[in-house]
Amino acid sequence: MTIPASKVAEDREASRLRAPIGNCPNPEGLLQYEPRLRIDVLDRLRNASVLSAAQFDKDLLCEISKLSAYLQLRKYKVNRALEDKIMAAAFFEPSTRTRLSFESAMLSVGGNTISVADAKTTGVAKGESLQDIGQMFNSYADVVVVRHTEQLAVAELSEYLRIPMINGGNGSDEHPTQALADWYALLKWRPEIAFGNIPDKFKLNIGIIGTPGNMRTVKSFLQLALLFHENINHITIFSEMADPLGDGLRELCDASPIGINFSRDLQGSLEYLDVIYMNAIAFLGDGYRFYSEDFQLNADSKLKHDTVILHPLARGEELSTDLDRTQHNLYFNQADGAVWVRQALLLAIFDRVRNSVPDNLLI
Amino acid sequence: MTIPASKVAEDREASRLRAPIGNCPNPEGLLQYEPRLRIDVLDRLRNASVLSAAQFDKDLLCEISKLSAYLQLRKYKVNRALEDKIMAAAFFEPSTRTRLSFESAMLSVGGNTISVADAKTTGVAKGESLQDIGQMFNSYADVVVVRHTEQLAVAELSEYLRIPMINGGNGSDEHPTQALADWYALLKWRPEIAFGNIPDKFKLNIGIIGTPGNMRTVKSFLQLALLFHENINHITIFSEMADPLGDGLRELCDASPIGINFSRDLQGSLEYLDVIYMNAIAFLGDGYRFYSEDFQLNADSKLKHDTVILHPLARGEELSTDLDRTQHNLYFNQADGAVWVRQALLLAIFDRVRNSVPDNLLI
Amino acid sequence: MTIPASKVAEDREASRLRAPIGNCPNPEGLLQYEPRLRIDVLDRLRNASVLSAAQFDKDLLCEISKLSAYLQLRKYKVNRALEDKIMAAAFFEPSTRTRLSFESAMLSVGGNTISVADAKTTGVAKGESLQDIGQMFNSYADVVVVRHTEQLAVAELSEYLRIPMINGGNGSDEHPTQALADWYALLKWRPEIAFGNIPDKFKLNIGIIGTPGNMRTVKSFLQLALLFHENINHITIFSEMADPLGDGLRELCDASPIGINFSRDLQGSLEYLDVIYMNAIAFLGDGYRFYSEDFQLNADSKLKHDTVILHPLARGEELSTDLDRTQHNLYFNQADGAVWVRQALLLAIFDRVRNSVPDNLLI
Repeated sequence: MTIPASKVAEDREASRLRAPIGNCPNPEGLLQYEPRLRIDVLDRLRNASVLSAAQFDKDLLCEISKLSAYLQLRKYKVNRALEDKIMAAAFFEPSTRTRLSFESAMLSVGGNTISVADAKTTGVAKGESLQDIGQMFNSYADVVVVRHTEQLAVAELSEYLRIPMINGGNGSDEHPTQALADWYALLKWRPEIAFGNIPDKFKLNIGIIGTPGNMRTVKSFLQLALLFHENINHITIFSEMADPLGDGLRELCDASPIGINFSRDLQGSLEYLDVIYMNAIAFLGDGYRFYSEDFQLNADSKLKHDTVILHPLARGEELSTDLDRTQHNLYFNQADGAVWVRQALLLAIFDRVRNSVPDNLLI
Repeated sequence: MTIPASKVAEDREASRLRAPIGNCPNPEGLLQYEPRLRIDVLDRLRNASVLSAAQFDKDLLCEISKLSAYLQLRKYKVNRALEDKIMAAAFFEPSTRTRLSFESAMLSVGGNTISVADAKTTGVAKGESLQDIGQMFNSYADVVVVRHTEQLAVAELSEYLRIPMINGGNGSDEHPTQALADWYALLKWRPEIAFGNIPDKFKLNIGIIGTPGNMRTVKSFLQLALLFHENINHITIFSEMADPLGDGLRELCDASPIGINFSRDLQGSLEYLDVIYMNAIAFLGDGYRFYSEDFQLNADSKLKHDTVILHPLARGEELSTDLDRTQHNLYFNQADGAVWVRQALLLAIFDRVRNSVPDNLLI
Repeated sequence: MTIPASKVAEDREASRLRAPIGNCPNPEGLLQYEPRLRIDVLDRLRNASVLSAAQFDKDLLCEISKLSAYLQLRKYKVNRALEDKIMAAAFFEPSTRTRLSFESAMLSVGGNTISVADAKTTGVAKGESLQDIGQMFNSYADVVVVRHTEQLAVAELSEYLRIPMINGGNGSDEHPTQALADWYALLKWRPEIAFGNIPDKFKLNIGIIGTPGNMRTVKSFLQLALLFHENINHITIFSEMADPLGDGLRELCDASPIGINFSRDLQGSLEYLDVIYMNAIAFLGDGYRFYSEDFQLNADSKLKHDTVILHPLARGEELSTDLDRTQHNLYFNQADGAVWVRQALLLAIFDRVRNSVPDNLLI
């Protein structure tokens, strides 16, 4: 079947002013408790690298979320804030979403970007070490965002690097900015998770599809979830692995007051899950494969009426498009929010928050 | 043979101030009838997608051409007009010319660009749907330019997209901005085509090499040609296909007062063609192949002395380089003009024409 | 072994303010003789292409080095100097270092960039000639930086090109901006090489690994070395080729007062070499291969205490990382300086030096 471009043009004319799809919580909600930004907290990120979710305590995550909210509300003019700075995007592992998200974020705050989108064109292809590539970035940029298939890449690049580095995903280890975007979405949706006191019977039940010990988005997301133990009742991890957490995470989870259990019955758990964190793939020890139907969600799934679904995207058959136009769809807003979160991180790393908001907004 | 760079340096020293090659009509010619811009006409493009040549009537094509002429004449300073905007170039089908042309245009008006130059590095490679990729661009950019091998891509990307999209070529369907550039060149060459009244014996005879129904540049070019029926006498389509037009185009052509016929004898037709629209390839039902010698032009071809040749480029053997330094060569100017046309479109889409020219230039 | 990102984050916290590694000479040294810039000399580059080291006499090399020093010292605000200009990076041969170096340079002076990082996505893949690609750049950019595997590419691109071109490496012919960066590093290290009068017994002995006649970085470096014959005693070329220079170079070298000899014994020569220019590869007539151990340097090599090593990078086993933290390491500073040199060239090509420094700095 073909739909000629001329027909599409007619259709778009009619849809020119349509609203965003899915659940789009108002960022103002995040700002109703304490609208001012704690600049001493944000200052921890000055000239810092953002490599792991472990660097974020509840305070820092909240202040970054609040700054992101101001940016998303477009309250202040920041489009020249970083005009003298260059961000290098070093993507040794292909990615469109994360790379374009960072580039868009940097350009929106007036910054400049240089990119390596494909490892085959880089020095690595010539056998150059990651240490030397790290040294190279000292001369070309003021901050570098890295994605690599190997966990060790962050450490190796870091050896000679003297500029801040943002981890855009290192193998199966971490993806901290994705997790920050995930929680920014959840805190817009229910700011009381961070700022309020949820009665016991309404504390959150979260379901996570995947194997945190082996999947970077899930690992980072879970680490940040533990920060909100006061308002989270329970986390269920749906995985087919024997040991889904791995050592480091298991210790953190054992020490947390949040009840954490493991299950293989997603469909049977839907009736009590408030948040479902979905993924496209499962690591099973013998390689990546796609989820079976048991782990799929669609408009017929027996979700609670107010359940929200997160997904780092790209998605496949595990998350049906017939959920897109429902209020369960927080995953589009989650991806959209990532650009504001990355703008916030860049402003904080370069100590330009003071230049971007009025003084009386800072405490 | 080698020519060392040192020798080339000497040669370039001598040629530093050389003039452009080929036929370079003065853009002032376009502005001599009504120099003022009809802003109500240009406003039709505000926040609009540009997907098909069918969106352009004669008025809009003329006003865009006039605005392009002002930009080419560098009369007004526009290099910050779109400084707060981001254009995404999503090129799922490789292209250097079109991508760089758009990027250059956006940067020249102060805008920012992010790019996907190679589909192998995108989510599509991960099996992500074009609908989801369209949704993604909502967050990363203010306008997206798309090129894809499949006709359907424009419709699929458009499903969730809420920002304007410019069609940079969708399969064999359309390439509207290329056609606008083609006609911008022709209107600079003979503005009376649009603005004047050409006596019958001097009305244009146009030759088009190719199969409009299956070749996007040719299809879009022909659609715009029909707008100038008052001053075009005849269009000859040189194709080896049984049905070169396809249904939609055939209806448009049948309804047009312009005489349209089909021929396989390009060489025998040269003596009466004023404009020849060449192409590198012919779609023949069994795949693309290159033209035979019958469809080649060179300095020995029996062209009328004032015939101009268009070609969307890249070109191969069908268009000989020995024509480059002749007045027949309008194809270099055609490619050059495309950047100004794309600047004009971007300014109109973002409603920044008023910011770019003096008020007294607008009616 | 894995090092989790969380651990790297801790380590980087401790190293946040660490100093650059290796030998980092103060650019002020270059400015102590005649701090003012000879604008008549820099004006030779106005609208000029930079294709060959042969274009640089001692005066021009020195003035470019001085301008680079001012830029590296960040004495003047240049971050909008070229805001209305576009640089195209046309990299038909993959390179990360050179492309990112030029992009970083252009962005730092306020310019804009468009890039072709991979020839497979270009018109060349469609069989388009380099002449036509040169013509294309006239419309898209104000300056084009080119790297290509073929020597002839510079001449072919140049045929229709009307904007300045910078040669980023054409086959085995030249790499002039790399050589300028090499000598910028050496002049920062010992400005008396250019500006002073070194007593005979302290004049420089330089060792060059490689085959200048066949290796572009080495050829360009050697050509510039000959400019400093007053303060260079001897150049030894370590190559296994029968005719390492080729005709053009041999004539230049024969005419030079500098003593030039050939050797295969690098290790036995270390005791008298002040500067060693290393390379990763050797052209041997039957293709490129890596150097044997005889041509490797490491912390145990019997270098003079104050010998400095240059290397255009990427490096392999020929230059051991255990030299990185020693004062022999000038190769990191050499790469860093290349960005400042490229900024200086761009400012000079576009005649924006006057806009970038105070009038009283110019003579």
